Amino acid sequence: MTDPRIQFAHRFDHVSGSAIREIFKVIAQPGMISFAGGNPSQDALPDETVSALAVQVLRDHGKQILQYGATEGYPSFVESLKPYVEKIAGAPVPAVLPVTGSTQAMDLLCKALIDPGDAILVENPSFLGNLQCMKLYQANLVPVESDGLGILTDDLEEKIRRYHPKMLYIIPTFQNPTGKTLPLERRKKVAELAEQYGMIVAEDDPYRDLRYEGDPLPAIKSFDRSGHVMFLGSFSKIISPGLRVGFIAGDADIVRKCTVGKQSTDVHTANLNQAIVDQYLRQNLLPDHIRRICEGYGKKMKLMQDQLSRFPGDVRYTRPEGGLFIWAELPEGINAVDMLQEAIARKVAYVPGTHFCVDGGHLNTIRLNFSNSTEEQIVEGMSILREIIGSKIK
Amino acid sequence: MTDPRIQFAHRFDHVSGSAIREIFKVIAQPGMISFAGGNPSQDALPDETVSALAVQVLRDHGKQILQYGATEGYPSFVESLKPYVEKIAGAPVPAVLPVTGSTQAMDLLCKALIDPGDAILVENPSFLGNLQCMKLYQANLVPVESDGLGILTDDLEEKIRRYHPKMLYIIPTFQNPTGKTLPLERRKKVAELAEQYGMIVAEDDPYRDLRYEGDPLPAIKSFDRSGHVMFLGSFSKIISPGLRVGFIAGDADIVRKCTVGKQSTDVHTANLNQAIVDQYLRQNLLPDHIRRICEGYGKKMKLMQDQLSRFPGDVRYTRPEGGLFIWAELPEGINAVDMLQEAIARKVAYVPGTHFCVDGGHLNTIRLNFSNSTEEQIVEGMSILREIIGSKIK
Repeated sequence: MTDPRIQFAHRFDHVSGSAIREIFKVIAQPGMISFAGGNPSQDALPDETVSALAVQVLRDHGKQILQYGATEGYPSFVESLKPYVEKIAGAPVPAVLPVTGSTQAMDLLCKALIDPGDAILVENPSFLGNLQCMKLYQANLVPVESDGLGILTDDLEEKIRRYHPKMLYIIPTFQNPTGKTLPLERRKKVAELAEQYGMIVAEDDPYRDLRYEGDPLPAIKSFDRSGHVMFLGSFSKIISPGLRVGFIAGDADIVRKCTVGKQSTDVHTANLNQAIVDQYLRQNLLPDHIRRICEGYGKKMKLMQDQLSRFPGDVRYTRPEGGLFIWAELPEGINAVDMLQEAIARKVAYVPGTHFCVDGGHLNTIRLNFSNSTEEQIVEGMSILREIIGSKIK
Repeated sequence: MTDPRIQFAHRFDHVSGSAIREIFKVIAQPGMISFAGGNPSQDALPDETVSALAVQVLRDHGKQILQYGATEGYPSFVESLKPYVEKIAGAPVPAVLPVTGSTQAMDLLCKALIDPGDAILVENPSFLGNLQCMKLYQANLVPVESDGLGILTDDLEEKIRRYHPKMLYIIPTFQNPTGKTLPLERRKKVAELAEQYGMIVAEDDPYRDLRYEGDPLPAIKSFDRSGHVMFLGSFSKIISPGLRVGFIAGDADIVRKCTVGKQSTDVHTANLNQAIVDQYLRQNLLPDHIRRICEGYGKKMKLMQDQLSRFPGDVRYTRPEGGLFIWAELPEGINAVDMLQEAIARKVAYVPGTHFCVDGGHLNTIRLNFSNSTEEQIVEGMSILREIIGSKIK
């Protein structure tokens, strides 16, 4: 800062926010094949429908939409959102709060619950946006051990006993960044442990509808008898991330505290955006739209997996049944951060896995997104990565 | 909360958020005359224009708008916003960040700068949403003394010396809740003191365009030679609060820190909303719109002041030249919190002034909003308040 007498708040001491920002700037370069973001495919973005719905809601409720709204949400949307959430969560939810993207759900939940030094258990790797969020609340992030299917509930219990965490943050379905889906028995166990030890579970489930094979699993929330599981969701992956509409649902007291926190964060989520998503629910537009985008995404995921199967050396990768990401472990000794420069020079971008890891490390890992590239780009971009990796293990 | 083992974060220890929430629920009752909110008039909300602009931007840039955007803002809007801000601030601004209503500007500024216990100087009374925001960052709020024109710079300097505040939060133009406008010389002095003592000024100026008489004054920012003044603004009062678009502008390092804070708050402000406001700026739609709404608001303000002049006893009130609020001091001994029940029973609502006061007290004060009522409602509602007050001083 210009004036050295003024210091930034300590919550930023270990947060730079710059690690992947630079990558996202690079994505914007013309001709870049990007496996880096978590962006929906351009052709999955329903611009015509959103435009028609905007006209409709502004015609029918324009004054209400442009006026201040309640922090608790646009009334018509709250009404349609509750049964929607109860259906996907597989459980009644006492309260639901529309928020400005599910990122805000996590922010408000931390605001409500986390004092500096409080322990939060996390998957490792996990979604870096929310890791940053928790770090800004100066939480003590404690990783729980995983196998190929997700966190190990024995280790979860041990960490609960040892660290007395306020919260577990978990993406159980098509996890970001690994694509893993937590099996049924472990979901049940997570809910049981939360009740037993008095721990909140933040179940972040934005990818659950993007399933291309296999059968859906019930949410952790569906096994929650005691109100310990808060269910976080988003319309970013199934309608549009640019609209910034998500929700948090669960225990009424916690939702109430999140609402008070939201009053001085952004007063309320923009009414127009809530009203548009409300119409998606009321006109039942989601099922057809989701079916259509899943078809395209499923093909792309398979194609990327096919390409990975031809990679040289000992490249391991996850085989998700849905979502947006594949996680790959390159041969030991390859530094994916260094390699990124080379890849970008050849017009391919990804995110090095280390950025998703709570304590860094795992330098030989990468996160690959397939939704935001065409099939041609996937073939071409993966060939380039294969060549680069091949050249390194010779 | 259901589980007594789980405690909410300490930042909520002194924040209930409920004081005026109950009042806002009451406003919604049919037949209620509300002088309580800070809402624009319904006929000032441009539903048809916003609808047409939504169609236009979604037609021309639909995919970009519905996709993830940069935390730094929708590029076209950042481009049009910067010269707009520089014009109203009367100074070059190194950086500008679109935010989700100017409430978020304050939230991010506190996030960037405030550790628990840090002193922030505030006007007293001040905007309660932002007082709550600062309390949630566990700041030590120190009120600066005022006269009929705003804060006294001698007391400001004394408080700076005594408390070494990180920041001064000030609404210099048509202040909320008092309607006061800080005179030119004091504005200059505020900027000088900020530089001299190394203090950030959060200049919150959302009402500046709502001037019904007198001449505009230059912003505090226009006297800022050293980058200590952060300029916060909003399109809520001049386009629509429901769209949730505001900005923070000033020192690039501080804006950068706010941007990192915003990454994990809501990723970015909804693109559609930014794109709509962008068109307001690019098509130069604001001047005519503002002229039109000021005409209506000016009449209503005068009418409310006329009504106040007929109040019995020693009722004092501010005489703003613009904005949305008049502040009235009722005769000593009248408790405006208690009186509110009576007023509501007779279908008139206001906000008791005590809620805007840093340490409470001032129980005989009220904030009156005139923008959100018709002229008939102002006459009727003020008559009822006059009667109620009259009955108390007999």
